[in-house]
Amino acid sequence: MKILITGGAGFVGSRLARALLARGTLDGRNIERMVLADQSAPAADLMADRRVQAAVGPLLAACDEVARARFDAVFHLAAAVSAECEADFDLGMRSNLETTLALLLALRSAGNTPRLVFASSGAVFGADPPFLSVPSRVEDHTLPTPQTSYGTQKLISEQLIIDFTRKGFLDGRAVRLLTVSVRPGRPNGAASGFLSGIVREPLAGAPSACPVALDTWVALISPARAVEALIRAHEASRAELGGRSALNLPALSLRVGDMLEALERVAGKAVRSRVRLEPDARIESIVSSWPARFHSERAARLGLVADASFESIIEAYIADHPEAIARA
Amino acid sequence: MKILITGGAGFVGSRLARALLARGTLDGRNIERMVLADQSAPAADLMADRRVQAAVGPLLAACDEVARARFDAVFHLAAAVSAECEADFDLGMRSNLETTLALLLALRSAGNTPRLVFASSGAVFGADPPFLSVPSRVEDHTLPTPQTSYGTQKLISEQLIIDFTRKGFLDGRAVRLLTVSVRPGRPNGAASGFLSGIVREPLAGAPSACPVALDTWVALISPARAVEALIRAHEASRAELGGRSALNLPALSLRVGDMLEALERVAGKAVRSRVRLEPDARIESIVSSWPARFHSERAARLGLVADASFESIIEAYIADHPEAIARA
Repeated sequence: MKILITGGAGFVGSRLARALLARGTLDGRNIERMVLADQSAPAADLMADRRVQAAVGPLLAACDEVARARFDAVFHLAAAVSAECEADFDLGMRSNLETTLALLLALRSAGNTPRLVFASSGAVFGADPPFLSVPSRVEDHTLPTPQTSYGTQKLISEQLIIDFTRKGFLDGRAVRLLTVSVRPGRPNGAASGFLSGIVREPLAGAPSACPVALDTWVALISPARAVEALIRAHEASRAELGGRSALNLPALSLRVGDMLEALERVAGKAVRSRVRLEPDARIESIVSSWPARFHSERAARLGLVADASFESIIEAYIADHPEAIARA
Repeated sequence: MKILITGGAGFVGSRLARALLARGTLDGRNIERMVLADQSAPAADLMADRRVQAAVGPLLAACDEVARARFDAVFHLAAAVSAECEADFDLGMRSNLETTLALLLALRSAGNTPRLVFASSGAVFGADPPFLSVPSRVEDHTLPTPQTSYGTQKLISEQLIIDFTRKGFLDGRAVRLLTVSVRPGRPNGAASGFLSGIVREPLAGAPSACPVALDTWVALISPARAVEALIRAHEASRAELGGRSALNLPALSLRVGDMLEALERVAGKAVRSRVRLEPDARIESIVSSWPARFHSERAARLGLVADASFESIIEAYIADHPEAIARA
């Protein structure tokens, strides 16, 4: 089978590609070809696999080719991120809405009803005061009221995919990812960036600032569980999915202070002491607008579970990224 | 002030135009100019008003002009209807999604933060089995799960308007209209068409078929209440609106059999007897997928109320359309 991963050079896209290549099959069929579409080139280890092909450039320009290629499976992860979309509205509309619609139309015109998994986001939820406050616990049927252009564009993309699926143009499944932690690499400008940074930087021997109060509740998913959910959503039958609506994932809900205690238990007091509290009202207000508890029954019925603990997430990060860990 | 009504030659658009011209003001300001944009020309009585101007043709082609005109108030009613969108997917995407987005971008580029009222639809609600069944009563926070392309496009348009409003590009208010009854004129192909036809045709002396069982519950709004809601949504302050989310309207909930009993009470046994039962499984299945009860607290706080009775709706129809009533 032929797989397309958009955003295939990104962190989650690369991990997904590696996981699929290691399995060798998807939905019981051999993976013969995998196209990684992104603005930048995929990692060298992925390009070394003879099944992998890169499509570097704007996805919007590649849609004609996508239509001709007749992919069997598509994972649509490419997106401009939340902070970018707030700073540049037109960029978000083009990258997240126009491009997704063009991709869906290309897949429809391919005519082979490809199966599509879309990485939506918990950012579809929020408050709409005074009508709705932040949900204390997000249920599968909780009303999304996105408070960013990014969240709006994700919600709209979900609805397009649901309708394209209802019409039989493709077989789409939208999965709402939560904040993925721990992300490797450089700090980015995202408001959620510190939820990786307060672990990654101290482990690398560097200082890190925590911009929110320690009793702030957050909802996390590890990179491994995120990739697992994307693959499970692909392989589920329609009956197992139980409805076309987007799927909320199980979350590890904990306080930021719990994250730091887990860091101390795994890596010691000295590592934890590299995190200093530097309250930032802007980030605090954004983070507190995110729901922190999820009761995701549909995902649970698919066998998806939340990470067992933040310790296990840190341990997996250390095992996956030995090059990023300072020697004691 | 300068008002644009898209769909201004349609039934609701024409009534809205007449109501606004008769008031002379909107939001306390004199109405100096009103542009009625539609595929066809507005009614002669409207064109006779020197404040009225027609813009006949596809709205998509008129968006540059809309940007230049700097309207103060826009009522966006133009849409391809449900049955059309199911039959021709691309038509619906163009008329209801591409055109709405182009209109929003034009209003943004006008730069004067116009106030926009959008006619959304109760068609955003439905069932998504087995995840969600038809809501027994729609609350303000009920999750929309549209089951038609039309409903999907209305929901997406709502979300675009909410985000354009959040960004300060315009001041948008989405109002979810219910089935408007009694509509005058010719029967159309809409699945809801009979909810006007079973009153309109017998009153005109013609037979009419009722395709659903008499104990089928439906949610209706009269033309007068629909127009009132559009104007109220325009004039409400943001604080009164209580959130950017789309507004559900109060509904008159009743059984189809209740509608016929009201017809008999108003117009007599002979008129009612012109309605014959002709069950149509296709229409029955569509109509039973629509929620029939609404608990619309936000609308109630704006002073919007459901029609008092179906008798009063029939009486208003007879008074408004004497030419369409057969002499006894």
